[in-house]
Amino acid sequence: MFLDIKTNERMELIDITNDVKEQVSKSGVEQGICVVSTPHTTTSVFVNEKESGLRFDILNLLERLVSPSAGYQHDRIDDNADSHLKAVLLGSSETIPIIDGKLVLGTWQSIFFAEMDGPRHRKVNITIIRQN
Amino acid sequence: MFLDIKTNERMELIDITNDVKEQVSKSGVEQGICVVSTPHTTTSVFVNEKESGLRFDILNLLERLVSPSAGYQHDRIDDNADSHLKAVLLGSSETIPIIDGKLVLGTWQSIFFAEMDGPRHRKVNITIIRQN
Amino acid sequence: MFLDIKTNERMELIDITNDVKEQVSKSGVEQGICVVSTPHTTTSVFVNEKESGLRFDILNLLERLVSPSAGYQHDRIDDNADSHLKAVLLGSSETIPIIDGKLVLGTWQSIFFAEMDGPRHRKVNITIIRQN
Repeated sequence: MFLDIKTNERMELIDITNDVKEQVSKSGVEQGICVVSTPHTTTSVFVNEKESGLRFDILNLLERLVSPSAGYQHDRIDDNADSHLKAVLLGSSETIPIIDGKLVLGTWQSIFFAEMDGPRHRKVNITIIRQN
Repeated sequence: MFLDIKTNERMELIDITNDVKEQVSKSGVEQGICVVSTPHTTTSVFVNEKESGLRFDILNLLERLVSPSAGYQHDRIDDNADSHLKAVLLGSSETIPIIDGKLVLGTWQSIFFAEMDGPRHRKVNITIIRQN
Repeated sequence: MFLDIKTNERMELIDITNDVKEQVSKSGVEQGICVVSTPHTTTSVFVNEKESGLRFDILNLLERLVSPSAGYQHDRIDDNADSHLKAVLLGSSETIPIIDGKLVLGTWQSIFFAEMDGPRHRKVNITIIRQN
């Protein structure tokens, strides 16, 4: 299934942990894995801590590693080369184990959808595989 | 199964989307996931847009983040430390959902095999898991 | 299941290949995938070559891309913003195919647990999914 996400900024980290947990619960799967992935090329999915200062630091790191305008070739066609490059660095999917019907997330782990070319309407895919 | 890939440059992004789609089709799996992974330590697999300018920008970013010669320790043994480091940044696998017998790829998504120490003969593994 | 890992340095790459292979063997799964993931937000899992010089180069690259102290917001709360940022770059899981009861690892591939805020007691999750 797909989550619908409305982003509000050009770059924004959105906590989707509760939505993913809800799908795991609905699936009835007790042991397995949950794959969270994006069908977009200027967004990513990753897992880390939900702390407002750290969220700022993550976006700032991406901005520092990938300058928004550095004479990119892709900017001749579309004005978002940096968004694609940030997405390549973060990756398009994460896989999280399920044990006893629950996502295996550590105390400090949240699942984030990273918007890097918003604001837009986006989708995130959640696919749950049973261990058999 | 494995795809055989012949690369032609030291660094090169090769679109393997059609090959992966063909394996999904052959598998007959209707709902599930497709894992695309590399058995090499100087190549990667990632998903992003197939636009020639952007492909140049991605290789250029890797070259900027990981200088080809920076007095790496590994270069005392083999002359490809930068290739390994680029591979660590990009990761060795991607997992893509399958819905109704088709890979869930967004409009702009293609699957790339990233060669970072070519030219060589390479392999890519495709493993398809049914959701049951 | 979870592996228990005792790390000894602030930043350290620990080869867990044999532990993962042992679990694949115990599972009796002949064809499938093995997901190796971390429940921590300052550690990562990745696959690359086990060569001591390269391990130094990888840690050095992370230190160069993510300066240990750069006025991070998160450092006002906890003194490990750089550890989180390195973990975001490397990712929290890897998925490796299983063929004929064995992990599909290339000649030079080892599976690493990356500690970036040690020394600590850590856990790594190994989940094996059968292809059916």
